[in-house]
Amino acid sequence: MQNHKKQKEPNLKKLLSGRSVILISNRGPVEFKRDEFGNLITKRGGGGLVTAMTAISEETRATWISAAMTDVEQAMARDDVVVGFPEDNPLYHIKLVDIPKSVYKPYYNVISNPLLWFIHHYIWNLSRAPDITAETHRAWREGYVVANKLLADAAAEESLLHINPIIMIQDYHLFLAAKYIRQQTDRAFLFHFTHIPWPEPDYMSILPYEMRTELLAGMLANDLLGFQTRHYANNFLLCCESLLGCVVNWKRKSALWQGREVYVRSYPISIDRAGLQKISVSSDVLKHETKLKKDYKDQALIVRTDRCDPSKNIIRGFLAFDILLQKHPELKEKVKFLALLYPTRENIKLYKDYRLEVESTVQKINDRHKTDSWTPIYLRIKDNYPESVAALKCYDVLLVNPIFDGMNLVSKEGPFINKRNGVLILSENAGAFSELGNSCLSINPFDVDETAEAIYKAINMPAYEKQARSASLKEIVEKNSSVKWLYYQLKDIVTIEKKKSAVKAVKEVAETVER
Amino acid sequence: MQNHKKQKEPNLKKLLSGRSVILISNRGPVEFKRDEFGNLITKRGGGGLVTAMTAISEETRATWISAAMTDVEQAMARDDVVVGFPEDNPLYHIKLVDIPKSVYKPYYNVISNPLLWFIHHYIWNLSRAPDITAETHRAWREGYVVANKLLADAAAEESLLHINPIIMIQDYHLFLAAKYIRQQTDRAFLFHFTHIPWPEPDYMSILPYEMRTELLAGMLANDLLGFQTRHYANNFLLCCESLLGCVVNWKRKSALWQGREVYVRSYPISIDRAGLQKISVSSDVLKHETKLKKDYKDQALIVRTDRCDPSKNIIRGFLAFDILLQKHPELKEKVKFLALLYPTRENIKLYKDYRLEVESTVQKINDRHKTDSWTPIYLRIKDNYPESVAALKCYDVLLVNPIFDGMNLVSKEGPFINKRNGVLILSENAGAFSELGNSCLSINPFDVDETAEAIYKAINMPAYEKQARSASLKEIVEKNSSVKWLYYQLKDIVTIEKKKSAVKAVKEVAETVER
Repeated sequence: MQNHKKQKEPNLKKLLSGRSVILISNRGPVEFKRDEFGNLITKRGGGGLVTAMTAISEETRATWISAAMTDVEQAMARDDVVVGFPEDNPLYHIKLVDIPKSVYKPYYNVISNPLLWFIHHYIWNLSRAPDITAETHRAWREGYVVANKLLADAAAEESLLHINPIIMIQDYHLFLAAKYIRQQTDRAFLFHFTHIPWPEPDYMSILPYEMRTELLAGMLANDLLGFQTRHYANNFLLCCESLLGCVVNWKRKSALWQGREVYVRSYPISIDRAGLQKISVSSDVLKHETKLKKDYKDQALIVRTDRCDPSKNIIRGFLAFDILLQKHPELKEKVKFLALLYPTRENIKLYKDYRLEVESTVQKINDRHKTDSWTPIYLRIKDNYPESVAALKCYDVLLVNPIFDGMNLVSKEGPFINKRNGVLILSENAGAFSELGNSCLSINPFDVDETAEAIYKAINMPAYEKQARSASLKEIVEKNSSVKWLYYQLKDIVTIEKKKSAVKAVKEVAETVER
Repeated sequence: MQNHKKQKEPNLKKLLSGRSVILISNRGPVEFKRDEFGNLITKRGGGGLVTAMTAISEETRATWISAAMTDVEQAMARDDVVVGFPEDNPLYHIKLVDIPKSVYKPYYNVISNPLLWFIHHYIWNLSRAPDITAETHRAWREGYVVANKLLADAAAEESLLHINPIIMIQDYHLFLAAKYIRQQTDRAFLFHFTHIPWPEPDYMSILPYEMRTELLAGMLANDLLGFQTRHYANNFLLCCESLLGCVVNWKRKSALWQGREVYVRSYPISIDRAGLQKISVSSDVLKHETKLKKDYKDQALIVRTDRCDPSKNIIRGFLAFDILLQKHPELKEKVKFLALLYPTRENIKLYKDYRLEVESTVQKINDRHKTDSWTPIYLRIKDNYPESVAALKCYDVLLVNPIFDGMNLVSKEGPFINKRNGVLILSENAGAFSELGNSCLSINPFDVDETAEAIYKAINMPAYEKQARSASLKEIVEKNSSVKWLYYQLKDIVTIEKKKSAVKAVKEVAETVER
C-alpha cells in the first residue's frame, strides 16, 4: 500500500502572506447546542463541503459566516457572538447570521431545494413539474434574494475589519451573494465555488427570465468562479453567452460583464484524507467492520452509500441488481447489496415520494429473489456514518451511479480506504469521472443493463486486474487533497489580482500621459 | 387584410435545372387503401411535414420514399409498385419500402418514440425514466438501425437512376440513413432536416455511448444539415464537439468529420398558406365556425389545438386557466377554453398516462368552477381537423405553450387565418418564437402564473394593440412559405456543391503541378 502521508501539502500561509479569508456558506462547520445545564456544546458537522472548508480554515485562520440553524444559534446570532473554534486553540472564527424562518424556508425549501437542485441535476419531470407559480416568485424575492442579502451583508461588514480580504462564497444557496457584497465594498476579492453541476442553457432556462438573469448576473459579480470540472465551467459560460447575451472569451475562459473580466476555472474537490484515515480506525468503525466481515463472509459485497436523493439514481442501482440476479441465479446467496443511505430533505414532497419508491423497489426485488437464509438487499435509511465507513473498507464492488453529480466524494473516499482491492463502478456523469474514468468500470447511469453487466464483471474480475485498478484509483485520490484544492484556487486569485493591478497601472500611466 | 396571394414564390425549377430530388421520410405523403371492390384509393395525409414536402414535390417532380404503413401498402412495396401522384397528373412518384413489423415496432415505438422524442424535447423524468435495458439495445440494433438501412437502401437504389440527385432525408426517424446511402454511392448530395428540437450535449448523453456516437456520426454522413432555428443548429454542433470530439468551425458553422466539411444551417419551416386558406373556407369548416360563433357568442374564446403530447404542455395550460379563474371569478361564464386535441401514439404507455392526466385535470378544474349554465373547459381528444381550423379562425386568445417544440405550426396557422385580431400567447421554447417573439405575448412554459397573467392581458387587450400585433404576426407568416423554405435549402445545396467542386479542381491542379 502506498504511503499517502508522504504527500507534501502546499504552503497556504506563504501564498496568502497574512491576508484574511472570509467564507460564506449556508451551513457552517460546527453545530451549536446547549447541554442540560445550559452550557454551549459544539459538534463538528459532516459533509464534503464542511470537510474541505475546515481544512481551509485551519490553514488560513478564516472567518466563517453562515446561517444560524437552531434556536441556540439564532440567539447567538442576535447577540452578535463570534466564536473561535476549536475553543482551546481557535483556528477560525464563526459568525452566525439570523435569517428569519419566513425567509429561510422559501430560500431553502422552495428555491435552493428542489427548484435549483433539480435544475442543476437535470431531474425535473418537465411535462409535469416544476410549476412556477406566484408562490415561487415570492419565494425568490422574499426568500432567496433576502437570505443572500443577509449573508452578503454580514460578509461585507466583516470585510471592513480586514485589508483586501478574499471572500469565498460557497454553492448554489448563494448565487446572488457577490452582487450584494460588491454593492457595499470593492476592497475584497470575490470568489464563488459551485459544488454541484452546472446545467446547459436550455435546462437553465426552466427558471423564469428575471430569476435566471439575476442569478447569472449575481454570479458575474464575482472576480473568479470555480466549478468542479471543465465541463461544468463551460456550461456556465454557455449560459452567460446564450441566456445573458454576455461576451465570452473562450480561449481565456472568461466572461466580460459590466466592464470587468470574470474568470471561470475548474478545481475538482478532494477528500480530507487524514480525517477519513483517522475515523476509519476508530473503535466504532472497527466494530461495524468486524460485524460486516462476519455477517457476509461468504458473500461478495456490493455497497452504495449516498444521501437518499433522486439525483443519486438509487432505484436504477437496484434494478440493475435485479437484472443481475435474473441473468445469473447462481449468484443467489453469494452476493449482498448493502445500500446505506442517509435521510435527506424529508420535508420536501419529492424527497418523501422518492424514499417510498426506493423502499418499495427493494421490497419487490427482495421478495422476488430471497431464499430461506438470504435476502439480496440490505437497505438502511438512517444516519450511521461509522457503518458506512466500515462498508467502504469492505466492499468488493462500490456502486456510484448518479444521474448527474458535481463531484461525488464517495467515489474518492471508497477507493482510498477500501482494503479488498474493490472495484469502483462509476457513472460517466459524476464530476469525479474526469479524474477516475480510466480506472473505474464506467457506466451510463440510465443503462441498467450495462450497470448489471458492470457488477457481474466486477464480481468476476481477476485479482491482478482488481489490484491494478485499485492501486491506480488510490494513486489518483492521494495526489489531491482538500488543501491542494484550496491552494489552486488561491494561486489563481493571487495571479488574477496581479494581472488586474498591472492593467490598472498601465491604464493610469496612459491616462497621465494623455493629460 | 393583407393580400398574401401577391407574395411571389421563388423559382425552384430554375434553381434545380432538371436535377432530381429524392425524399425519404418515415411516413409518406399519401395513404393507400383498397375500397370494397379492391380498387386502390388514396388519401393525402396531414401534418406539417407532409404539407411542406408536398409543396416541394409538386415543384420538383421528386421521388418520395417512405415506409409502407398498412397491409395494402406493404403488398405494394413487395410488388415494387411505384405510383405517380396525383394519378391524373403525376407530380411525384411514391416508392414504398416494406419494413417487417418486427423491425418497425422497435424502430418506431421504442427508439423514435418515446426514447429520441423525449430526449429531443427534454421531457424524461430522469430519476425514474428511461431505463435503458437489453430490450432498448436490441430495439436499436434490430429496429432503428435496420429500418434506417432499409429506407437508405431504397434511396441509394433510386439514386442510380438519376444524375447527381439531391437526397433529402427527413427528421428523427432517419438519423442514420445518410451513413448507409454514402456507403453505396457518392453521386448524391445528402441533406438531412431535423423538424424537432436538438438538445444540448448533457441531455443527449442520456443515450448510451454507442447509440449517440452512431447517431451523430450518421448525421455527419450528410453534406448539409438543416434545423429549425440557429439555436438548435448550435446545439447540434455542441454535441459534435462535446460527445464526438469533432472539430467544429463556429464561424463557418460546420463540423469536420472524416475529411469532409459538414455544414449546419437553420431553415425555419413555414405553413402551406394556399392549402390552409382553401380548407378554411370549406363547407365543413364553415359549419363548425357558425356553430362556435353561436355557442360562444358572449364568451372570449381561448383556443389550443395540439397532438395530445407531453411536450405540448397541455396540463400547465389548464393550470394557468384555473389560476385565472381563481384570481378573476368575474370571468366566469365570460370565457371558454377550447382544447381541441388529437390522439397520438396511444400504444405507448407514457402517452396513455398523459392523456388520462389531461382528462382528470380538466375534470377537476371544470368541477371547481362550473356554473349551472357554463363549463369552463371544452376538451376534445379526437381527430376533427375542420373543427380545429374553425376554432383557429375564431379565437380571441391562442395558447401555444410547449415545453420545447421544433417549430410549432399552429402558432403560424392561427394568426394567418384568425379573423378576430386574436392574441397569440407563445412559449419562448417554441422554434417559432425566434420569428414571432416580438408580436406575441411571450411566456416561460413552466410559469403557470405568468401564463395566467398573459391570458388575462390578452382578454383585456385594447383593440388597437390587438390589431397591431395581429397584423404584425400575419405579415411575418406571409413573408415565408413552404416553397421558400425549400428554396433556401436548395440554394445552399447548390452553393456548397459549387464550393466543393472548386476546391476539388484546385486540388487536382495542385496535384498535376506537383507531378
